[in-house]
Amino acid sequence: MLDQVEETGPEQEEPEAYTLGKRDVAAILYAVEIDDREKLVELMEPLHAADIADLLEQISAFERARLIRLYDLEFDGEILSELDEAIRDEVIALLTPEVLQEAMRELDSDDVVDILEDLEDAQQATIMGALDEGDRAAVQQAMSYPEYSAGRLMQREVVMAPEHWTVGAAIDHLRKTPEAELPDQFYHIIIVDPRLHPVGNVTLGKLMRSKRETKLTALFEETFKVFSATQVEGDVAYAFNQYHLISAPVVDEDGRLIGVITIDDAMAVLDEEHEEDILRLAGVGESSLSDRVIETTKQRLPWLAVNLATAIAASMVISQFEVALAQIVALAVLMPIVASMGGNAGTQSLTVAVRALATKDLTGSNVWRVIRRECLVGLINGTIFAIVMGIVGIIWFGSPALGGVIAVAMVINMVVAGLAGTGIPIVLERVGVDPALASGAFVTTVTDVVGFFAFLGLAAAVLL
Amino acid sequence: MLDQVEETGPEQEEPEAYTLGKRDVAAILYAVEIDDREKLVELMEPLHAADIADLLEQISAFERARLIRLYDLEFDGEILSELDEAIRDEVIALLTPEVLQEAMRELDSDDVVDILEDLEDAQQATIMGALDEGDRAAVQQAMSYPEYSAGRLMQREVVMAPEHWTVGAAIDHLRKTPEAELPDQFYHIIIVDPRLHPVGNVTLGKLMRSKRETKLTALFEETFKVFSATQVEGDVAYAFNQYHLISAPVVDEDGRLIGVITIDDAMAVLDEEHEEDILRLAGVGESSLSDRVIETTKQRLPWLAVNLATAIAASMVISQFEVALAQIVALAVLMPIVASMGGNAGTQSLTVAVRALATKDLTGSNVWRVIRRECLVGLINGTIFAIVMGIVGIIWFGSPALGGVIAVAMVINMVVAGLAGTGIPIVLERVGVDPALASGAFVTTVTDVVGFFAFLGLAAAVLL
Repeated sequence: MLDQVEETGPEQEEPEAYTLGKRDVAAILYAVEIDDREKLVELMEPLHAADIADLLEQISAFERARLIRLYDLEFDGEILSELDEAIRDEVIALLTPEVLQEAMRELDSDDVVDILEDLEDAQQATIMGALDEGDRAAVQQAMSYPEYSAGRLMQREVVMAPEHWTVGAAIDHLRKTPEAELPDQFYHIIIVDPRLHPVGNVTLGKLMRSKRETKLTALFEETFKVFSATQVEGDVAYAFNQYHLISAPVVDEDGRLIGVITIDDAMAVLDEEHEEDILRLAGVGESSLSDRVIETTKQRLPWLAVNLATAIAASMVISQFEVALAQIVALAVLMPIVASMGGNAGTQSLTVAVRALATKDLTGSNVWRVIRRECLVGLINGTIFAIVMGIVGIIWFGSPALGGVIAVAMVINMVVAGLAGTGIPIVLERVGVDPALASGAFVTTVTDVVGFFAFLGLAAAVLL
Repeated sequence: MLDQVEETGPEQEEPEAYTLGKRDVAAILYAVEIDDREKLVELMEPLHAADIADLLEQISAFERARLIRLYDLEFDGEILSELDEAIRDEVIALLTPEVLQEAMRELDSDDVVDILEDLEDAQQATIMGALDEGDRAAVQQAMSYPEYSAGRLMQREVVMAPEHWTVGAAIDHLRKTPEAELPDQFYHIIIVDPRLHPVGNVTLGKLMRSKRETKLTALFEETFKVFSATQVEGDVAYAFNQYHLISAPVVDEDGRLIGVITIDDAMAVLDEEHEEDILRLAGVGESSLSDRVIETTKQRLPWLAVNLATAIAASMVISQFEVALAQIVALAVLMPIVASMGGNAGTQSLTVAVRALATKDLTGSNVWRVIRRECLVGLINGTIFAIVMGIVGIIWFGSPALGGVIAVAMVINMVVAGLAGTGIPIVLERVGVDPALASGAFVTTVTDVVGFFAFLGLAAAVLL
């Protein structure tokens, strides 16, 4: 044990030690190259399963196959848990039935479920076949809850005690329970009433420090939240973050305790949701660095197609002003500036609005104040840049009228950007569409169309 | 206790219960309106400090001032902890010295530090004055560590035991320690050597279930990470998420245990960092829904100014082709499409790259593979949309040559978008600039300039 600790000690000195260094990867790949199993196992031994998963994600498919074949029985179930979905099925296909069986047996039921839900039917069947009778039933039960629900996220191993128990009774019970029936790690005891409804929780710290005759009900934590199995995991993660929960019970439709969710699961969900939001805002959808070219191409295509439609719509607006454009070439030179500024201002407003909706900071109570603020910000920034562009227009093209036109168009487009950037995500959220996914296309359509229309329309009216 | 539980019970039925309903807010504001303190306290009583903070963020500054004055001594320190920085100083200024003093005394030293670090000097002095001697020293010590470091994040109350102790000795020690010297919640005991260097940790669950004579060193958890006080909090949060840590010791430059970081702190940091990344990618920087119009305007202005410079640069490219534009108006109509598609494709690549850098998935080991993939994706999607636009060009303007020009320009710009979208964030990261903050401006400059230049240049060469 002490050796292990000595190894951990120096690690803190260099933050980079959390991730695999380039040299570690090279050494491991060299061991694979020369088929030196002993060396490979030795190099992999100090690595956490999460690091091994990172390693597998970073190397090429060819190297991955060779490494896994050489590593063979050392392959741990935890690695599968940590692996990116994009290559998980590829890795599972590489494992021999014995290795897969052994790997799955080591895992808690919630981890098995997490792996299973992203696989195709054939692979699901293989894994189900590898499980013990009891585990299989537990996994099937969990899989009966909707995807992304608390029921899938929870672990079924629960530490509970009836509400009439004392501290002494709870401790004795805990000491008598066989290791296998307890979760790997637990921090609370959930107290239940006779109908198995959770009524409170007690931290192990309080339990340990209290007199044996103290009633458990006297030690309840102040903050206590119960989740139903069908609740979406995003809401669960939000509540963990909002109320600083460490663990929380999950109940079935009758309110009976059936599992527990811990903060590390919630943290993983929060992390995934954030990732999704960022990628959706950029029109990438579900994506991973391990995806192959064809998958990546397919993921990005829809958003680009939407953008093409948007861009063509904007072009149609431009084509209405061909006469003006033919007479004054400067319009063609300047028009992208108005559209681009509006697009950027709109993206700023929309990102703030999408985030505020996700964190539940933007609610019915402050929606009008926020919209008004965004329009005002657009007005002020629009005016500032209108002045700048007006001057640029005058100096560049020597035409005060042209400068005036671009200035007015800029103000209009940036106020519209603030309005659309805030209003569109709010409306989408109300009608049940994910604002992170869809707002961008709508907002840039609005700012492009309004930008071109305002600038060219004003120019046609004033300058021709 | 049971009443409280009955209140919690039904809450799980409706996920919306996590946030304040519109009706709750209205009822509270009405109580403030009619100056009914009793009613206000009654309505606020069931709310978690995090919910009260949300409430204060959602109402107007005027309502906030009235509410706080009416709420008076009920105001809890936790609320300040949960409040958004944007209005925290405003709220602190509204509290009477007695309320502030009382509020600060209830908080752990790490929470006081968290509040203090964002305040101006005058307010910092007020709060320091409100603290007890001991707390003040602890806070000053913590403030001596750099901002966003593990030293500021950690709590100083630590539960530790020497490595030669048995389970029985540890339990007896825990039971004898006065409540006030222990953290509010703790889940591990940190085991230290005689020089106070942490060597391992033991969960309370294992401690409780083991025989009294068992040595603590026999119960060490497998995963154990130590952080130095100067390490940046982002790396700490990353490690918590990567290795599923629940708590981890923090050491000074001599490796001596000085504090502990728990997963809920790490989760909050992870959440903030994500938020920052999203906002930076959209060119918003630090921002909050509670910011006032002027602050918001100022935050967004720099990015818009950068975008204006970018847009003007693109316009200068366009102005090089005035002759072509004057002869063929269709070029002005179509040119924004090429730029826009490149901009979108570039944003997709760049978002994936920025995220992969943040999650340390994009490393020296796979950087060339990723760049190659992005360029290939650009090539394939570029070709698909080139065909579409070529056909649109022919149908719309009846010119196969024009269709060909836009098609070729599209392919060029989308390959460049893949290259720039991946390459620019990687280079920025290498030279120490936050890629989330700066990549967007560079990438859209490249795609605008290349898009206009390729399209108009080809058109001038082929069509004139």
